[in-house]
Amino acid sequence: MVHKIAIVGLGKIARDQHLPSIAKNPDFELAAIVSRNAELEGVDHFTTLDDMLAARPDIETVALCTPPQVRRQYAEAAIRAGRHVLLEKPPGATVAEVEWLKNLAAKHGVTLFATWHSRYAQGVEPARAWLADKTIKSVEIVWREDVRRWHPGQDWIWEPGGMGVFDPGINALSILTHILPAPVLVTGAVLEVPENRQTPIAAKIDFVAVTGHTVTADFDWRQEGPQTWDITVKTDAGLLELSGGGSVLRIDGQTQLAADDTEYDGIYAHLAALLASGESDVDIASLQLVADACMLGAISKVEAFIE
Amino acid sequence: MVHKIAIVGLGKIARDQHLPSIAKNPDFELAAIVSRNAELEGVDHFTTLDDMLAARPDIETVALCTPPQVRRQYAEAAIRAGRHVLLEKPPGATVAEVEWLKNLAAKHGVTLFATWHSRYAQGVEPARAWLADKTIKSVEIVWREDVRRWHPGQDWIWEPGGMGVFDPGINALSILTHILPAPVLVTGAVLEVPENRQTPIAAKIDFVAVTGHTVTADFDWRQEGPQTWDITVKTDAGLLELSGGGSVLRIDGQTQLAADDTEYDGIYAHLAALLASGESDVDIASLQLVADACMLGAISKVEAFIE
Repeated sequence: MVHKIAIVGLGKIARDQHLPSIAKNPDFELAAIVSRNAELEGVDHFTTLDDMLAARPDIETVALCTPPQVRRQYAEAAIRAGRHVLLEKPPGATVAEVEWLKNLAAKHGVTLFATWHSRYAQGVEPARAWLADKTIKSVEIVWREDVRRWHPGQDWIWEPGGMGVFDPGINALSILTHILPAPVLVTGAVLEVPENRQTPIAAKIDFVAVTGHTVTADFDWRQEGPQTWDITVKTDAGLLELSGGGSVLRIDGQTQLAADDTEYDGIYAHLAALLASGESDVDIASLQLVADACMLGAISKVEAFIE
Repeated sequence: MVHKIAIVGLGKIARDQHLPSIAKNPDFELAAIVSRNAELEGVDHFTTLDDMLAARPDIETVALCTPPQVRRQYAEAAIRAGRHVLLEKPPGATVAEVEWLKNLAAKHGVTLFATWHSRYAQGVEPARAWLADKTIKSVEIVWREDVRRWHPGQDWIWEPGGMGVFDPGINALSILTHILPAPVLVTGAVLEVPENRQTPIAAKIDFVAVTGHTVTADFDWRQEGPQTWDITVKTDAGLLELSGGGSVLRIDGQTQLAADDTEYDGIYAHLAALLASGESDVDIASLQLVADACMLGAISKVEAFIE
């Protein structure tokens, strides 16, 4: 059965990732676009979600690709209209609202899928499998990229709820919480907030795993030149390195895998499986770590950021 | 059966509240104090929790009255030693650590009680009962007190994890989440952080209840003179006012109840009931709201606070 799907929010992530992965996947048919301004040639267009929900009862699934600040209201409307919902990351602006949406979806008998695209990078599952029976000694995350390159003109990332550098950083945390066999807890954080902005441009976070080892995270949006998305895990059986955001896996310096980016293909394959089984997949662990880092963190004001 | 209990952290809250309520309650016997510096005449004293756990296997319950930053390690040690644990509020410095402690306690078959003393203010249960069948239109929280009067010399409240004005503010949220019939979600927040401190001295938070009405919270630590701890609820059937931190209840201006403070007596009565039934009571809803407000909130730097 082919699932008709609508995309809400036709911004950069929808165009770069969702459209190509939906086009490639025979389980889905792009049936509508909801966007105030943007249209897509040859696809039914609505300016509001409510209009689409009313006009197209045949569209059973909605992919929310809007900024996180408005995701809850859209998700609520779609769920109450009996539609399945895919949430771009982060799944909401607060943890409590995502937990509540999860309960609401269960009540309405629809699938809610809070996606974490980095978990579908091709080195992630092999890393998880390799770590499962190792004793971990420490983990180091370095996630440094150039905000001007990856978020051009996206003012919402600097508004409250936009998360700032946690927007990419949460990708690392979504991998971390997936590949480690035990939970990690925030023990300290320093958040660097530009004096003209509301959200951090850099963050350093200390964690402890409940099994005892430490984890450090270094998130920075000011890195020009080569970009760094690395997770390094020291174990009793050697060194595991995930780099390139999870697409390259090395163990003790030997490359195990260096794969193309197929993250969103993985997301839509998993969505098809969830729709087939009638299940939801809502893991808030990495969002909770960000909220905890914000509650526990010290704020350091740094120089203004001018895009 | 009388339960032997140890207090860890003999600070202001232990002396002002825990000691008198334990002394009054025939279900408990104060059997030890754990404190680096402070001792209590006639009670067994230990400088470390590990020493107490090793020396006194007969003490089945531990009340953690330390600042929140160190609560997790102590709770973990006590739970792993098979002891029941009472946590002062807030139950931890992060939400994830409290969730993890809850799972750990379940695994070890002991009771974990995350206390919220304001919920035992005598107007709270009548307010909850009255609101249960009303349609709520809006809620206004005003929680303004003088930090110099209530937290003299407590530097930990200004350190990361000390929560600042959320330390009293979470009392209001613990009442709110108890008396309202439906969950509330943070939609916006402004946190005022003194330029020489790490945690907010004031905060304004906007919430929406999932049933649609708004909630506003105004927390401020700079109020001299009369102190304000008020929650006002407008409903279709009249106005409910909880004041004095929950000890005074008025409906449409008519005083229903104006009671003495017996909050900690209520805590120890509930602890006895939990120990008798073998249950835990760990509600993280109000801590989650604070974490969400910190993640979603805008930071505003305000003038230095000198105690």
